[in-house]
Amino acid sequence: MSIGAATNGTTGLPVPSHNAHATATATATTSPYQHIADFISNVGKFKIIESTLREGEQFANAFFDTETKIKIATALSEFGVDYIELTSPCASPASRADCEAICKLGLKAKILTHTRCTLEDAKIACDCGVDGVDVVIGTSSFLREHSHGKDMAAITKQALEVVNYIKSRGVEVRFSSEDSFRAVDNAGVHRVGIADTVGCASPRQVYDLVRTLRGVVKCDIECHFHDDTSCAVANAYSALEAGATHIDTSVLGIGERNGIAPLGAFLARMIVAAPEYVKRKYDLHRLKDIENIVAEAVHINVPFNNPVTGFCAFTHKAGIHSKAILNSPSTYEIINPEDFGMSRYVHFAHRLTGWNSIKSRVEQLGLHMTDAQVKLLTTKIKAMADVRPLAIDDADSIIRAFHLDLQERDTVETWKN
Amino acid sequence: MSIGAATNGTTGLPVPSHNAHATATATATTSPYQHIADFISNVGKFKIIESTLREGEQFANAFFDTETKIKIATALSEFGVDYIELTSPCASPASRADCEAICKLGLKAKILTHTRCTLEDAKIACDCGVDGVDVVIGTSSFLREHSHGKDMAAITKQALEVVNYIKSRGVEVRFSSEDSFRAVDNAGVHRVGIADTVGCASPRQVYDLVRTLRGVVKCDIECHFHDDTSCAVANAYSALEAGATHIDTSVLGIGERNGIAPLGAFLARMIVAAPEYVKRKYDLHRLKDIENIVAEAVHINVPFNNPVTGFCAFTHKAGIHSKAILNSPSTYEIINPEDFGMSRYVHFAHRLTGWNSIKSRVEQLGLHMTDAQVKLLTTKIKAMADVRPLAIDDADSIIRAFHLDLQERDTVETWKN
Repeated sequence: MSIGAATNGTTGLPVPSHNAHATATATATTSPYQHIADFISNVGKFKIIESTLREGEQFANAFFDTETKIKIATALSEFGVDYIELTSPCASPASRADCEAICKLGLKAKILTHTRCTLEDAKIACDCGVDGVDVVIGTSSFLREHSHGKDMAAITKQALEVVNYIKSRGVEVRFSSEDSFRAVDNAGVHRVGIADTVGCASPRQVYDLVRTLRGVVKCDIECHFHDDTSCAVANAYSALEAGATHIDTSVLGIGERNGIAPLGAFLARMIVAAPEYVKRKYDLHRLKDIENIVAEAVHINVPFNNPVTGFCAFTHKAGIHSKAILNSPSTYEIINPEDFGMSRYVHFAHRLTGWNSIKSRVEQLGLHMTDAQVKLLTTKIKAMADVRPLAIDDADSIIRAFHLDLQERDTVETWKN
Repeated sequence: MSIGAATNGTTGLPVPSHNAHATATATATTSPYQHIADFISNVGKFKIIESTLREGEQFANAFFDTETKIKIATALSEFGVDYIELTSPCASPASRADCEAICKLGLKAKILTHTRCTLEDAKIACDCGVDGVDVVIGTSSFLREHSHGKDMAAITKQALEVVNYIKSRGVEVRFSSEDSFRAVDNAGVHRVGIADTVGCASPRQVYDLVRTLRGVVKCDIECHFHDDTSCAVANAYSALEAGATHIDTSVLGIGERNGIAPLGAFLARMIVAAPEYVKRKYDLHRLKDIENIVAEAVHINVPFNNPVTGFCAFTHKAGIHSKAILNSPSTYEIINPEDFGMSRYVHFAHRLTGWNSIKSRVEQLGLHMTDAQVKLLTTKIKAMADVRPLAIDDADSIIRAFHLDLQERDTVETWKN
């Protein structure tokens, strides 16, 4: 099949059009980047509702004391998230005190809290000084039967009372539910929220649902995706393509069960689609620090394969890859590590290595060899790496020894002549 | 908005129709499960090409000795993967010896190897005794310029030579490229492969591309998705919806950079969509062992948030969630942990707990209390958990002490009367 020039790598997949990193290195040829045009898409103007201090508090290991909460909230605000969502002040006295304390910090990010859809909870939330209240009520037949047992008419009436109360306090209000969106939209809610609470949604389902909802309400649309089936980030992206405006994230994705769309992974996805917007709005160099703060607070390791900050996110190993990477990073790298304050690493000391990788290392070490010499050296390194793993130090020693050997032979040749 | 009964949880998202676990618990009401119908979809009849021993060998930490390779290949075959892909026997003498050794094991899974598109490599691969050869050649303008520098006519000619040679040896052949699919399809290739080598594709792009390719070739379609932007599993799912037949995975996703679609995460996605097919075909109880074998071999920890086997995958904490989970697991759980030999855990000893969780624990401990007593106990536990984290042992001690206290009061009351 032919898909023309709108492709990249060894793939047939068209890639987005705006990545400055890729574009910069690609403009020598024709631009191979093409984006699926979509008039309802908010891919280039989304907002983040960061829920590490709400959803994240439901993570098995999470116990955030006041100091930790303030540290995380401050870091997230400096990073540039639009909203920070906190556990309901009604959950416990400490939750309430912490909510009040964070509201008083005067952070740039707006402070939201998540409460049940009752007047009592809404009042307590407003009293804490939050900028917005996210009220949530489950209305599916499952939850009507197994959890709170209310019928739809009662749910709608209660929702409107709570929405109107929060608005009367001059506070932003979001409503999460599934069946009452039109009613609360008419009541002037700022945002409706939909959630894939069990983490089962697929991108096409999300796209269809959000596009339908976009045609029904005029307010903003917030989406919350759990990651049980590894689709949270893809679903968030599909939701934005379909007209959603706000995405819930948490640092490293921590939350109930295996969590929700992770802040870093979501931004890895978004920087590919809307690099200028993402780089202008978020202080990406702070990502790794924020992840480390949270990982330490909840006693977890950053996953080895975490996008952007995982230890191998920018490590290249295969010979054929390394060769292309050395010539032109965007051939095998869609994200520029420097945008996040990270660096690229081409792994050369292994049995799959190619002579281009070795040549690059030779140059990094400040040594001079002909291509023929580098190829001979590569054969030696591959042979040794085929028997046991080679550390970089080992490989460097082999390279230096080989170079010394070459020089000595040169000297002998010179002396002979 | 109203989306009828085709929803689940607190969400507006329709969920797939075939999950026996969810259906079993949901049939009491009307079935809330509905699948996006699609005549070209292969969601219910996909095949797995397991590439831990090829793509996975390109993971930064990977150095598999012969014994480890045999252990992994055997485990994967017993698990039920359709194909096992090995590093090219041309990469090194050890790679060749290992390829021959694995071919001689007589595993149930077919053995593939991945080679460059040259006659020499194809001959060596066939000589090793593999069931199939996956030839790959990058043809994008980027790679033509920066890597091997061949023009399209030469690429097509070479591809046909290699394809015909492999077929003449009676071996299956897959061809990966981007611009020559129609030619090799006509030449009788068994499978064409497309790859998102840089990990930048989004689900809608994948769906559109695979659907187009499906209309162009009659052979099988294999897809390979890197996970740089956390969409690998979602992209694999979208590809199957669009008519792809084979998906590349690796255990824990290990591979170049942060890797490809992980075997476990992919099956978590697929069991939701096609539970009977997945449960019949794969011995899911072996997943955790296979992940542990590979994690140990490459010196990594299984990520805390790994689908299915991560330590928190089936841990429920929030009060409102726990209540529903205890009544009906499918309210907040789309995957039945028992399908994978895992178990559910409702975390109850924390400040966000609800009395339903505590009641469940009281019953697990074989104690008897009235609801009013459990509610009083819950207040005590929440108050203590608000000050410091509570271990389960701590919480159990509080519960037992409370129960003892109740009994003593009963005794006093009895004595008084």
